[in-house]
Amino acid sequence: MKTIVINVGKEVLTGKTINTNLTNIARKLQSIGIDVNRSFIIDDIVSEYYNSLSNVYEDIIIFTGGLGPTIDDITRETVLEYFKVDTYVNEDVLNKIDQYFKKIGKENRDTNRKQALFPVDSVVLDNDRGTAPGVYFKAKDKIVVLLPGPPHENEPMIDQMIDLLKEEVDEPLYSEGFKLVGTGESWMESELVGFYDLHPNVNIAPYASAGEIKYIFTSNNQEDIAKAMHAFYNRFSEFIYGSLEDTLEGVVVDMLKQERKRIVTVESCTGGLLAGKITSVSGASEIFQEGLITYSNEAKIMYLGVDEKTLQTHGAVSEQCAYEMAEKLYIKTDCDIAVSITGIAGPTGGTTEKPVGLVYFGLDFEGRVSVVKQVFSGDREKIRERAVIFALNMIRKELINSKNYY
Amino acid sequence: MKTIVINVGKEVLTGKTINTNLTNIARKLQSIGIDVNRSFIIDDIVSEYYNSLSNVYEDIIIFTGGLGPTIDDITRETVLEYFKVDTYVNEDVLNKIDQYFKKIGKENRDTNRKQALFPVDSVVLDNDRGTAPGVYFKAKDKIVVLLPGPPHENEPMIDQMIDLLKEEVDEPLYSEGFKLVGTGESWMESELVGFYDLHPNVNIAPYASAGEIKYIFTSNNQEDIAKAMHAFYNRFSEFIYGSLEDTLEGVVVDMLKQERKRIVTVESCTGGLLAGKITSVSGASEIFQEGLITYSNEAKIMYLGVDEKTLQTHGAVSEQCAYEMAEKLYIKTDCDIAVSITGIAGPTGGTTEKPVGLVYFGLDFEGRVSVVKQVFSGDREKIRERAVIFALNMIRKELINSKNYY
Repeated sequence: MKTIVINVGKEVLTGKTINTNLTNIARKLQSIGIDVNRSFIIDDIVSEYYNSLSNVYEDIIIFTGGLGPTIDDITRETVLEYFKVDTYVNEDVLNKIDQYFKKIGKENRDTNRKQALFPVDSVVLDNDRGTAPGVYFKAKDKIVVLLPGPPHENEPMIDQMIDLLKEEVDEPLYSEGFKLVGTGESWMESELVGFYDLHPNVNIAPYASAGEIKYIFTSNNQEDIAKAMHAFYNRFSEFIYGSLEDTLEGVVVDMLKQERKRIVTVESCTGGLLAGKITSVSGASEIFQEGLITYSNEAKIMYLGVDEKTLQTHGAVSEQCAYEMAEKLYIKTDCDIAVSITGIAGPTGGTTEKPVGLVYFGLDFEGRVSVVKQVFSGDREKIRERAVIFALNMIRKELINSKNYY
Repeated sequence: MKTIVINVGKEVLTGKTINTNLTNIARKLQSIGIDVNRSFIIDDIVSEYYNSLSNVYEDIIIFTGGLGPTIDDITRETVLEYFKVDTYVNEDVLNKIDQYFKKIGKENRDTNRKQALFPVDSVVLDNDRGTAPGVYFKAKDKIVVLLPGPPHENEPMIDQMIDLLKEEVDEPLYSEGFKLVGTGESWMESELVGFYDLHPNVNIAPYASAGEIKYIFTSNNQEDIAKAMHAFYNRFSEFIYGSLEDTLEGVVVDMLKQERKRIVTVESCTGGLLAGKITSVSGASEIFQEGLITYSNEAKIMYLGVDEKTLQTHGAVSEQCAYEMAEKLYIKTDCDIAVSITGIAGPTGGTTEKPVGLVYFGLDFEGRVSVVKQVFSGDREKIRERAVIFALNMIRKELINSKNYY
């Protein structure tokens, strides 16, 4: 079954808003084996609706936008008119809308009625975050779905649509996946040559973002997915940190909680972003009590007691300095793990020996200190972002190793 | 003049990539007075190109995607075929592509030739970040532009297209704007009732994001823009922190540099994100040497010497604690300005008296301490983000006040 998504709204055409609705809808549809074949973005003008609809040869038409109460919102009436379906006013929906507008001190039963108009034999899609409910109906051999435009209303309603569409798919698809860190897409793809052929009934697709990759396994056979994922895990377990719902910082905080290890951070080039990521996880206070940002040499000396000679001889961006930062932080504070980051985020400050992107990571794990050197590519923002992900992964790997060791 | 943007690529239709090309192109076109009327996203299949092209009634057609060297990349040949234009192989372009592929150890003169094919009387749009150059030509009363799909290649090429399109616009439009912080869109819009009527020849549009608003002034008359912006500035100067190219953190760091003031931060609920924002500005080391993250009560006592009684009596999230944190940080360190943040980012930990979103900000400016209380809405991430923007704006306002004072 093929789908066309038609987004209605000036916001996207003027560049005010990025079209995230299409992305969210496409991903969810794919997970049940339905492809988005085309997508249109049109203005809220009747002729544009008719022009688009007369051009549709797909089986499913999903509209987003133009369902609100203002005169510009004409999606519902225009589409129902085009398909010439019989309609009725849904009293339950009307009452809900009336109540909402009474609450905010506006009453306008006429425009509310407009939002409560539904085709006979249609399904109402509940909208918990706005007044405009969605609609799901069949007409002229097509399945037609109308969803509101604002992404925070649209997104939670996609699942209701997916549940209905699932019934229409002959062979439902299943989807699962892994999240990986510490490896690159091109290296993975070269490693996976031949792997895909061994699992012909499973679609395996990588989705890369800065520093991380998702691999999504899709098939109509859950056993085939399990087999493919098992084989994939055996080969790449060192890079796999979780399933699709996990975040790297969430996994690291959970591991620290489980192992009852408290962590302390000291950052130079990342300027607090590692601590910011750790504390983005609700409940991080259980394992994170404090962090330092020692941006200048003076701060490294004053707060940690880094040796002045180390800074003079090797510089602040050096293996020795990262080592001392982690070690002295561990001794100074009441923690189990101390992490240090020092590097050159650029765009200036690089030399031939110490280029922009060079970062040293120190890790003191209950008294054992290790240092890792990395050179990251990208601009200042990307380098800092990648350094934070690298540090989180370093903590993750150390926690796994220490567990295996005991 | 009306435009249709046709994006070619499975990446967007499968939800792998968000369509940022459309957003970037639409914004730039708007700045010279050209509207995007519709946008299509299609798969790289010849019939889809023909179907779309036969449906076009706009004056300008911009394609993105499908310009690369692989067999899937058929945009160039298909569109040139559709418009039946005479073509030639551009030897300069061909040589560049050949050199590129030689450098990375791949030679394939045949597929390279494909990328060097241009309509007679077309303009080559240089691509500094990839092998596929863009094309600008006229055929069948239309202006046709072909651009590559990857956003990092596409974005820098938009300006070349804009320069050519400017020549086609009878009355070129001019665009300028302000960035505002510390105010909301709905309050601004109610304040601006009547203002728009006083400047009928200028289109004034707000673009809101978390904690900030852009106002963009567009007109065919530069004098009218200047007048409207002058009047706008007189009314809202307290909220205006810069022009469209500025960032709040960039403006604050520049002000600190200019006033030769060094800043220190201590963060609780924002966990290092304020320091992270300040150090995102290259050269921040001139005014930022260190920061503390005192997430636990113990850290607040140990690093700053916050009074235990303060924490017992008023709690860590209190006016008194924010005051002490800023004051003691100022005394302890060699700085001119000390900023403290303490609050409840949620989702748990809130009470009726101290709800989720409650944040206290302390600021010690050369010995004078002030504390501000705010309640932010949104989830944990949004509350932390808004708190960081609020703190930056607090610093900005204090710097302005201190300058006026002396």
